Amino acid sequence: MLEEIRQQPEALARTLSAELKRVEKFKRLVEKQRPRMVVLVARGTSDNAALFGRYLLEITTGIPVSLAAPSIATLYQAKVDYRDALVVAISQSGESTDTNLVLERARAQGALTLGITNESGSTLAKLAEHVILVRAGREKSVAATKTYTGQMLAMYLLAYALGGRDVRIADLERIPDIVDATLGLEPEIDALSERYRFMRHSVVVGRGLNYANAFEMSLKLMETCYVVAERFSSADFLHGPIALVEQNFPVFAFAPPGVTWPSIGETIGKLKALQAEIVAITDSGNHEVDATATKIIRLPRRVKEILTPIPYIVPAQIFAACLATKKGLDPDKPRTLSKVTLTL
Amino acid sequence: MLEEIRQQPEALARTLSAELKRVEKFKRLVEKQRPRMVVLVARGTSDNAALFGRYLLEITTGIPVSLAAPSIATLYQAKVDYRDALVVAISQSGESTDTNLVLERARAQGALTLGITNESGSTLAKLAEHVILVRAGREKSVAATKTYTGQMLAMYLLAYALGGRDVRIADLERIPDIVDATLGLEPEIDALSERYRFMRHSVVVGRGLNYANAFEMSLKLMETCYVVAERFSSADFLHGPIALVEQNFPVFAFAPPGVTWPSIGETIGKLKALQAEIVAITDSGNHEVDATATKIIRLPRRVKEILTPIPYIVPAQIFAACLATKKGLDPDKPRTLSKVTLTL
Repeated sequence: MLEEIRQQPEALARTLSAELKRVEKFKRLVEKQRPRMVVLVARGTSDNAALFGRYLLEITTGIPVSLAAPSIATLYQAKVDYRDALVVAISQSGESTDTNLVLERARAQGALTLGITNESGSTLAKLAEHVILVRAGREKSVAATKTYTGQMLAMYLLAYALGGRDVRIADLERIPDIVDATLGLEPEIDALSERYRFMRHSVVVGRGLNYANAFEMSLKLMETCYVVAERFSSADFLHGPIALVEQNFPVFAFAPPGVTWPSIGETIGKLKALQAEIVAITDSGNHEVDATATKIIRLPRRVKEILTPIPYIVPAQIFAACLATKKGLDPDKPRTLSKVTLTL
Repeated sequence: MLEEIRQQPEALARTLSAELKRVEKFKRLVEKQRPRMVVLVARGTSDNAALFGRYLLEITTGIPVSLAAPSIATLYQAKVDYRDALVVAISQSGESTDTNLVLERARAQGALTLGITNESGSTLAKLAEHVILVRAGREKSVAATKTYTGQMLAMYLLAYALGGRDVRIADLERIPDIVDATLGLEPEIDALSERYRFMRHSVVVGRGLNYANAFEMSLKLMETCYVVAERFSSADFLHGPIALVEQNFPVFAFAPPGVTWPSIGETIGKLKALQAEIVAITDSGNHEVDATATKIIRLPRRVKEILTPIPYIVPAQIFAACLATKKGLDPDKPRTLSKVTLTL
């Protein structure tokens, strides 16, 4: 898992340079045939990339986005009207039966279809009319890391193709370097993780573009460290779940500077008053968090908010991998799981 | 909380009879002006009713549904194109600033707007072009119960107005009686709850039409019992989080007979092999679950799957209220929370 985390700068740079031509072609197509809505369909970690895509696409393109619920097609056999939609299936293996079924039926209805996968020879790559390949290389660890950030990059490329405001290729080309600089935090995060050796449960909060990262960090904590990890937007957290929090309750918070900071900052302030243990992931552009957080993981470079999601998940991935080791677990072989999960 | 749980049959019957005329009028309107998509916007318990609505509306009407992310409007100031959409805001108090803002902006764009609220004099009731009133009476407990089932009923009325397949008023009129019969389980659930006196964390699983109930049960466990309660679809659970489960780990499962049973049954089977403690909520139409569940809460009447969601949440509400009392907590006054939560 740590090895694959470290491969991310290279994998991201490879995906970006190799896929750009195909993305430009897709951009010309959707300029003529603009979809009325975007439907994202995925499971597991890929579904967290879809959740990120939901925010990125609505914010930058104004096209309404829906995250599909596969059971509506697979169990209820309902036919949702996707005629003028762009339906995007996201799957590391490209062999997720339920997401493939949703895409296949949408294409039969006349929807524009796009597959985002790490496997060029997969069923998904064949079923979808258009493809963006995540060129992360084979992922051996059950816990997905480099394919998650690769799928997020594919979401930026999709936003670019749809004419997304403030989505520039020159900015995306900076991401591999920012991730590379972030990897330098590994020794510091490894030392920090020891403190959480006996943590059994926690909450992760994020908002807006980093909301999906709260889901992804909690999934990594669940599957590699067996920590019961809740995930909330800082707004939803105040609508009930904050009642959970007592002294020393561990809360992880994605706290980039920018438009989400007032909301995250308010939540962290309330948590501090409850004497919770707050671990903030932030960068050198936010020092307001220093007054409230118990521990801070600070990315070395200040990052534009729209570019934060990929670099910000990296310390969370490292933390989960290191904590698993501290707990005497093998992060590459979580109990009960296998790499490809088939569901109906 | 228990008092308000017991008021549900009466509240549901009152809402149904009082709102039907208004719903018929709305039905005639949307027959002429069919929306291209439905956007649901809500927070907290109301967001769980929206999640239920998402499944119900897509399954019965085939119109694509999106659950809005309010921060896209409130923090990022993005303008999503909702022109031919029906935008529905759901709020008990009708005073949720962020959901109201999304609805107001959508109406300004020309979207058809509907407010679902318990308060006829609220800001939401004034902002929305059309209204369905949840006539649950004043809800005093911070933990929402009768307004949740009232909002779910409003979702059925909306599905009916949109011409939803298999959504019949005569069927809906049976729900209050089914809920009334379910309330008879209270002594049995009260006795069962004692076993969970020292439970600190748990997982709740559901699928399809009962997926939202998994969210709602876990929210009740978090806010009234301070149990760290995860919620998953049985499909997503197998994609990672099942690694959490060890011997005696408590899992609550919504297990109605019908199309979701094979998926829920498969998950419960895996959990049994891991020696988890499984509490199944089911009815007299499903005896297959008896071989795998540790404990069963069985509704006295067999219920058509499409009608299960309202009756099935009732034992979960009772369980949370009884367990809070067993834990020495006051379910009506969760620490840190107030009834109306204002978020940006």
